[in-house]
Amino acid sequence: MASNSSGSGSQGRAPQRLRIIAGHLQRPVDVDATVSAAECKAQGGEADVASDGKSVPKRRQEIMKWNGWGYSDTKFLFNKKGQAEFTGKRYKLSGMIIPALKEWMEGTFGTNMQHKSLATPALTRTAVQPPTLNEAFVEELKSTGVPFSHDAEDRVFRAHGHCLHEIFALREGKVGRVPDLVVWPNCHNDVVKIVELACKHNVCLIPYGGGTSVSSALECPQEETRSIVSVDTSQMNRILWIDEKNLTAHMEAGIVGQDLERLLNESGYCTGHEPDSMEFSSLGGWVATRASGMKKNIYGNIEDLVIHVKMVTPQGVVEKSCQGPRMSTGPDIHHFIMGSEGTLGVVTEVTMKIRPMPEYQKYGSVVFPNFEQGVACLREVARQRCAPASIRLMDNEQFKFGHALKPQVSSMFTSFLEGLKKFYITKFKGFDPDCLCVATLLFEGNREKVLQHEKQVYDIAAKFGGLAAGEDNGQRGYMLTFVIAYLRDLGMDYYVIGESFETSVPWDRVLDICRNVKARIIRECKDKGVQFQPFSTCRVTQTYDAGACVYFYFAFNYRGLSDPVHMFEEVEHAAREEILANGGSLSHHHGAGQCCAAWAEVMESGRVERCGTSYSADTTMC
Amino acid sequence: MASNSSGSGSQGRAPQRLRIIAGHLQRPVDVDATVSAAECKAQGGEADVASDGKSVPKRRQEIMKWNGWGYSDTKFLFNKKGQAEFTGKRYKLSGMIIPALKEWMEGTFGTNMQHKSLATPALTRTAVQPPTLNEAFVEELKSTGVPFSHDAEDRVFRAHGHCLHEIFALREGKVGRVPDLVVWPNCHNDVVKIVELACKHNVCLIPYGGGTSVSSALECPQEETRSIVSVDTSQMNRILWIDEKNLTAHMEAGIVGQDLERLLNESGYCTGHEPDSMEFSSLGGWVATRASGMKKNIYGNIEDLVIHVKMVTPQGVVEKSCQGPRMSTGPDIHHFIMGSEGTLGVVTEVTMKIRPMPEYQKYGSVVFPNFEQGVACLREVARQRCAPASIRLMDNEQFKFGHALKPQVSSMFTSFLEGLKKFYITKFKGFDPDCLCVATLLFEGNREKVLQHEKQVYDIAAKFGGLAAGEDNGQRGYMLTFVIAYLRDLGMDYYVIGESFETSVPWDRVLDICRNVKARIIRECKDKGVQFQPFSTCRVTQTYDAGACVYFYFAFNYRGLSDPVHMFEEVEHAAREEILANGGSLSHHHGAGQCCAAWAEVMESGRVERCGTSYSADTTMC
Repeated sequence: MASNSSGSGSQGRAPQRLRIIAGHLQRPVDVDATVSAAECKAQGGEADVASDGKSVPKRRQEIMKWNGWGYSDTKFLFNKKGQAEFTGKRYKLSGMIIPALKEWMEGTFGTNMQHKSLATPALTRTAVQPPTLNEAFVEELKSTGVPFSHDAEDRVFRAHGHCLHEIFALREGKVGRVPDLVVWPNCHNDVVKIVELACKHNVCLIPYGGGTSVSSALECPQEETRSIVSVDTSQMNRILWIDEKNLTAHMEAGIVGQDLERLLNESGYCTGHEPDSMEFSSLGGWVATRASGMKKNIYGNIEDLVIHVKMVTPQGVVEKSCQGPRMSTGPDIHHFIMGSEGTLGVVTEVTMKIRPMPEYQKYGSVVFPNFEQGVACLREVARQRCAPASIRLMDNEQFKFGHALKPQVSSMFTSFLEGLKKFYITKFKGFDPDCLCVATLLFEGNREKVLQHEKQVYDIAAKFGGLAAGEDNGQRGYMLTFVIAYLRDLGMDYYVIGESFETSVPWDRVLDICRNVKARIIRECKDKGVQFQPFSTCRVTQTYDAGACVYFYFAFNYRGLSDPVHMFEEVEHAAREEILANGGSLSHHHGAGQCCAAWAEVMESGRVERCGTSYSADTTMC
Repeated sequence: MASNSSGSGSQGRAPQRLRIIAGHLQRPVDVDATVSAAECKAQGGEADVASDGKSVPKRRQEIMKWNGWGYSDTKFLFNKKGQAEFTGKRYKLSGMIIPALKEWMEGTFGTNMQHKSLATPALTRTAVQPPTLNEAFVEELKSTGVPFSHDAEDRVFRAHGHCLHEIFALREGKVGRVPDLVVWPNCHNDVVKIVELACKHNVCLIPYGGGTSVSSALECPQEETRSIVSVDTSQMNRILWIDEKNLTAHMEAGIVGQDLERLLNESGYCTGHEPDSMEFSSLGGWVATRASGMKKNIYGNIEDLVIHVKMVTPQGVVEKSCQGPRMSTGPDIHHFIMGSEGTLGVVTEVTMKIRPMPEYQKYGSVVFPNFEQGVACLREVARQRCAPASIRLMDNEQFKFGHALKPQVSSMFTSFLEGLKKFYITKFKGFDPDCLCVATLLFEGNREKVLQHEKQVYDIAAKFGGLAAGEDNGQRGYMLTFVIAYLRDLGMDYYVIGESFETSVPWDRVLDICRNVKARIIRECKDKGVQFQPFSTCRVTQTYDAGACVYFYFAFNYRGLSDPVHMFEEVEHAAREEILANGGSLSHHHGAGQCCAAWAEVMESGRVERCGTSYSADTTMC
């Protein structure tokens, strides 16, 4: 029988509950017999990709870049012929030429293939400060059997997320304060021991899941003198049970998205939670950061998916004692955990809802004459509560960007078709190629319902001047999801730096926020002497009843500027101010982290405002 | 332009934001011009039913019972002919004879029309302790202009909710510790002043919305020596704005459900939030208790409906500074507020989602051969995610109970039809009248979609032996919603006491929990010497992906027992233990209040467990 909790408290609770239930049995039961909850028997083993099919080895640098995004065997580069190419074998785009990318980069950023700003190829160990080891902690740690390391590479790997400034610094070989020790707990009980020891010996813990944070959440405080230990959860990554009656599954928090879905798929299920980071991001990280997934319209965001959470804190283990679907028993403690971003404890185990895998999937796309019509269409789709699994609207700049990422087509016939479509859309239907926008769609579910649903959505789109543009364009849009992140490294090879940021905003502010933020970025860059106009673009990536999620990209060529990262941060700060001024939130799903610390301020009246929450207080909110 | 917040903090924020937005205007703007947020101009007026159409006067006892449920002009009684009758004019059932009720009560409880246990008709003022007035507080209160009273009737009215023991005591004329003062703030700013004064003068505040608590949340601590002030929100009940672009509306927290829906309906909208208490319960109360509504399958529970909340706390006003539909900016503070049950502050204003009123509504009902098949059907409906606006399954006892509440039919023809139906179901289809169960359904939405949806649900029902039993039965089931609560007062006139309680539980435990809890109640009553077997019944009232809400009724004839309320509480406690043992939560929607304090315990290991949440701690969770 599955045990929802381990630890001494349940030893008292389980026998009591069994005694109560036993009262209903027809035959008498020996109530003096000792009842004990089964100990979690999950074995900690040497997990590696080959034997378990799990994606994350202990020494991640064996397969992942130490100073860039993703897998080491995958990158964008310009080949000997000067064509853009995507290396490796992991993705649909892998091994393909992308003919239009070079011209797009040159036109958009003024990049010059002769002018390179390559990264330091390997970490210089001497750049890494020796670890500050708390000897007493390490001694006791040894007796727990939990694997650990203070190797420089292991420590540097876990010292950062993927904010621009973090990657820029690594590319320059610069390393600041990093964790002193890395530990790899194998299960919840290991984490309990680690947290106990940390409390006992005054050691800092930083939970480390996928390392995909884009909110500076993993940055070690420079001035921290205590020993910092990175708690790497990647080896506690098992699915402990699947409950087909209740459609739930219970996992260790270190499991990453691609493994979770793949393993559930083997049983015909899925969580349907598909954040763009899902190749690397972990269940614990999703819970801690209030993650959102591409198909939240069907499956919900993380707060809709979570049934039970176990978190180890300095005060002990926090968890509910039942799996009721919805309760009114005081404030929902899951909501103290979700959004705590690693500051309150380590999430160790989570029960999530699962669904049968969808019977049928269909992509789609719609071309709109302009962004305004597209937004109006998405708003109407939301109003009618008929959004597909995913619906995203990109602006004209992203449409062109997407075009530039098209792989070389092998057949002349396909090329001819592309040309035909273009003619039809621009000349015949009168769409202006410098205004038009594209929405990509994904429908999932029962086949008959999907086709009905599709008709309803396209009918709405037509009312806003939208023209169905085929499944291919939709599918390609989604296929690019996992490869886009690799592009920044290519940009950074050619003096281009960029970042994405996102917000959530009421419907009636969507157009303003898109226009104003993009314009503000351009103006700020101009004022700061950036030569080439920056790439400033947005898309509406999620719809809700009362508003939408808007995702911005911002990138520019920094060649000739003395302190590009600092300047970049000033522009980004201005962009975030613009977002707030236009009624947007600090973040829809990336999280506040430390990058939003600037918005924790004491106001004149003594009110502290942070991240969209106001308190009147004499002291700063902690 | 609507202002989301008042107070000095926004005075700094609004000008700053306007300056930022002004940066985008084509023509120059005088940025030195003073910008100030518009003060909330909502007038506090003498609200009464006639002039404003609002339901709750300051002196509630003018229209509501002081020692029972609901309106004074409405009650169940046995008329001179010995027939059960429902008096008044407010409800569909009003003015009707209920022919079968008397026999059902006699058969179920062994009630005897000669043996009455009538309530004390009027409050004896001398039973009420003189108020403990904090003179300094009262003096400063006078200068605020906020109306107040220390009249005994006003104080007693707000000293209780509707737990059995509370009403039982009032019927006996017994009055314990009650609030010393009642205040009626007219708007948010009034509440700010009240809270400031309470902090300054060390006065307790108890927020009072609808007074419909069934968790002892309103009980004043007997030993409290400080002055207790009841903050009655009924006069701050305005809809401040409706935002048709974002489909949201902003209300003062004292508005009650029936007024909110009626006023929104005038503009073609609704919240769709329909708790059974909606005639009297308030928006602030829903937020504080994590309320659930009958049609949550379409509209969501309160946590799905709320976009923005303003709460006045001793530390100041807590509110988010934007209306983004979903954010990741740390833990969601709305979830500190929701479920706080009046312990952390006073909720003053709330923005909720609204929807266009449904185009079409259709009721329905399904008869199942037994409860197990009914539950299996509801589980499958949940699995396919095709639940109607409402779907509820009652057990056989409730089916019979519902039958007993049928009003006298005026036409012989209708009676004949009823007889025909009964014949068809029992003799022709072979349903056993002592096993069969009924599910009531409500569909809402676009007419075409409703009919499709209806077909899908009935097809599923047929797979589980379910037989469509017509719209009438469905409609009657829902019509009884608001009158059921009046029945307890009738019961209490004839030595019958009863209570409802509810839980949420995973799907695979639903049958166990229903069977075991009902059996436990019967066994406990028997062991305690209750003469007549108690009425012990349940229904599944809500479906979720991962489980359901189960609602229990429990009532018995206490004639001859010396301390019936104490005995009742012991049985209820045992029933709650049974619920927990079978994997249910302490509450789905009623809240924890003080009635669940027994489940806050320090366990052997030093862990504190309350209401389904475990913490390891040296000190009790506060």
